[in-house]
Amino acid sequence: MFKNDPAAVCLISGGMDSAVAAGLAREAGFTLHALSFNYGQRHRLELRSAKRVALWLGALDHKIIRLELDKIGGSALTADLPVPKNALGPGIPVTYVPARNLIFLAIAAALAETVGAQRIVIGANAIDFSGYPDCRPEFMAAFEAAARLGTRAGTEGRAPTVWAPLIALSKAEIVRAGQRLGLDFGITCSCYDPAPDGRPCGRCDSCLLRAKGFAEAGGADPLRR
Amino acid sequence: MFKNDPAAVCLISGGMDSAVAAGLAREAGFTLHALSFNYGQRHRLELRSAKRVALWLGALDHKIIRLELDKIGGSALTADLPVPKNALGPGIPVTYVPARNLIFLAIAAALAETVGAQRIVIGANAIDFSGYPDCRPEFMAAFEAAARLGTRAGTEGRAPTVWAPLIALSKAEIVRAGQRLGLDFGITCSCYDPAPDGRPCGRCDSCLLRAKGFAEAGGADPLRR
Repeated sequence: MFKNDPAAVCLISGGMDSAVAAGLAREAGFTLHALSFNYGQRHRLELRSAKRVALWLGALDHKIIRLELDKIGGSALTADLPVPKNALGPGIPVTYVPARNLIFLAIAAALAETVGAQRIVIGANAIDFSGYPDCRPEFMAAFEAAARLGTRAGTEGRAPTVWAPLIALSKAEIVRAGQRLGLDFGITCSCYDPAPDGRPCGRCDSCLLRAKGFAEAGGADPLRR
Repeated sequence: MFKNDPAAVCLISGGMDSAVAAGLAREAGFTLHALSFNYGQRHRLELRSAKRVALWLGALDHKIIRLELDKIGGSALTADLPVPKNALGPGIPVTYVPARNLIFLAIAAALAETVGAQRIVIGANAIDFSGYPDCRPEFMAAFEAAARLGTRAGTEGRAPTVWAPLIALSKAEIVRAGQRLGLDFGITCSCYDPAPDGRPCGRCDSCLLRAKGFAEAGGADPLRR
């Protein structure tokens, strides 16, 4: 990591996808500014994992921004609604958080502008995913256009672009990329509804997708030992 | 205000523009959900004004969302930089807050989705303004496209549209609209750098634009008595 390396703002949730996406950015030579949100998510284990991921990445800094999305609600992740179990299927599930990636990318654009980063890196995936609309490539392109017009950086021709390196990968391919990068998956946390001791439930969408990835890629998930 | 009125999320800063814009939405028959941010702005007088404006509007509710933009900085309004005085001119001044309207509109889109609002109302103005890129109509259109693609509401064909009724008005026309709506301008607060007792400085961009509006519209600004 050198002073003149290009810089990227990496959205880090604590899950494995954002860790792998940021790891790919590091491998590509970017200096990393990690960005996470304390947005009223049901469990704060995510933020403990996010800190560990930022350390593993060797990020230049890691900002955790408080944002009271719990005052808006509308999701099983930010309001008092049950998390569906064994329910992967078509349609947008109740774990969808209204406009979450739009909000997170907007704040990432502000940070990118402040630190002079050329890229925003997001672990969004539109293959083995829960059907969230804000994980699709057409949304990423529309966001870039809005950020280009709505920031000083954009008016100066240096608006950040969004890099979503996992968007067309299967969960197995994401697991394999993480294995290649040397990620200890044990520091990540994917479950929407973990037990009080942090053990994943194994039955929410996110656990099911993660298990599918490990099953197809080969190799054990350290969280399921 | 009736149960079947269309609903609008109104961004309320405490300044006169957002108050007039929301007042026009009320006049147009919308039920109003007021939304403000405690984003680390230099002075919290704005939020006291925002509460008074929401009361004047008869908003159905008023959410004040904590958002730590002060951890990002990059602006004289959120970091420890001096506010320029008597300095209205071309270019984007240091009071520009990186991606602020992009962030605020994104969170407004989340609230609109949750409460079923069809409109987001913003007091942005691109005539007598400080040259902020996120106040221009082309940005508003790009934002709408991103919100349409990045929300569940959008996939269901009910994405909110942005209404910026002041975008092409002069400051004098905004003052006159406020006078017609019966707004007590004394409850609003525009100054970027007020004295500890709340009196406006009279010399920042925002004070200069407000004074220009009253001078051209006729009528006294109750804050300058």
